[in-house]
Amino acid sequence: MTPTIELIKSHRSIRAFKDQPISQETINLLVEAGQAAATSSFIQACTVIQVNSIEKRQQLATMAGGQSYVEKASTFLVFCADMKRHELACEMNDAQMQSGFTEQFITATVDCGLFAQNVAIAAESLDLGIVYIGGIRNKISEVSDLLSLPELVYPVFGMCIGVPDQDPDVKPRLPLSIVLKQDSYDDSKDRELLADYDKHVKSYYHSRGSNTKEMGWTDQISGMLVKEARPHMLPFLQKRGFIKR
Amino acid sequence: MTPTIELIKSHRSIRAFKDQPISQETINLLVEAGQAAATSSFIQACTVIQVNSIEKRQQLATMAGGQSYVEKASTFLVFCADMKRHELACEMNDAQMQSGFTEQFITATVDCGLFAQNVAIAAESLDLGIVYIGGIRNKISEVSDLLSLPELVYPVFGMCIGVPDQDPDVKPRLPLSIVLKQDSYDDSKDRELLADYDKHVKSYYHSRGSNTKEMGWTDQISGMLVKEARPHMLPFLQKRGFIKR
Repeated sequence: MTPTIELIKSHRSIRAFKDQPISQETINLLVEAGQAAATSSFIQACTVIQVNSIEKRQQLATMAGGQSYVEKASTFLVFCADMKRHELACEMNDAQMQSGFTEQFITATVDCGLFAQNVAIAAESLDLGIVYIGGIRNKISEVSDLLSLPELVYPVFGMCIGVPDQDPDVKPRLPLSIVLKQDSYDDSKDRELLADYDKHVKSYYHSRGSNTKEMGWTDQISGMLVKEARPHMLPFLQKRGFIKR
Repeated sequence: MTPTIELIKSHRSIRAFKDQPISQETINLLVEAGQAAATSSFIQACTVIQVNSIEKRQQLATMAGGQSYVEKASTFLVFCADMKRHELACEMNDAQMQSGFTEQFITATVDCGLFAQNVAIAAESLDLGIVYIGGIRNKISEVSDLLSLPELVYPVFGMCIGVPDQDPDVKPRLPLSIVLKQDSYDDSKDRELLADYDKHVKSYYHSRGSNTKEMGWTDQISGMLVKEARPHMLPFLQKRGFIKR
């Protein structure tokens, strides 16, 4: 165990922040930490929009489904998968870019994930709290317009960062034995393991300090998955030049 | 600056490893660190296959385009986006899962990115080195068969982990001002910034200890993007239940 691993294992999302600003110097440091992540074939496909405008923050909070901390957090960053810069690189070298491949969508999206997780850990190492905001994809077209994102750029998720004004528990994760498999995908014990895990999650929700509920993991997940999942995503992405082939 | 941020900023991929095993206890600790990452709506969509079999390692090294360190690294993990577990959760609750949404593909893929980056940083905090292996997507269908991955599971990337037997330089990243934008996507200065960055990258490649070359960033990227990017990905993913709508 190292202090860094202890830090990583203590993660929980923070949704209430103190009214305490973060300096631009610190934000720059966090984004530089993001840039230090591995990047597929050096594509560096993540661009971050730091949203300072109060009006834009309010609109983003609404678009994300009424998540007020998007407005209230000291810092709000939007992580964008960006192949516009690659188009420019091609132009600068008189090359014709072949775009629209699903593979490129994966590499750009994964780049954003690795980048953002570095930002998250760097922030937490400074005693800041963070929460990812996937909710911006509720209104991905409106969010893109609000931030003037061009074709070949899409907002993957946002992130609130600030000084925590709450201290929630760490949520119990799936048992290691279901998540880490040896040499091949064997799920013969998964049903049993999930049933046990359900009990564990129920007891966690039941006993935690606030927002107690009676719910396991499988019922929570199944309740979510019987519904459509943002069906506008594929047409939006294709319009913006992604996943066309 | 914190020790964790210093660690993050010192990342470079390691492709040569000492012949020194990593204990299962340590691997478990790394995967638990991965599990601690944020996960979209608590879906926990990442499953890790730890590949121990020498035969499978050799085959994976070949499938990844002849990357011998896939065979030689002490540990090789394959990070899979996994919605099979969600299907089981639905079954256990007599619910009918709606699958195939691009949105679900994004959340599961991003989950793997955040998870894996935690594993990477945790490993580096233990003085281990890592390299992501996107090359397994060269032969994604064969890799999936080799690891017996069912429908609704796809291998996003692999990761070699081991004790470093090399000490490469940190590669210079894009200028912060091109990657971090304020309030909206303004790329009016990007061409100029990329031209400067090209010089910087050229000088880095020219002066580094080994594998010197004459190349900037934009020419490297454009050389790559004039080619098709794994055109088999979309049909493969659709066959496995992803990106169908």
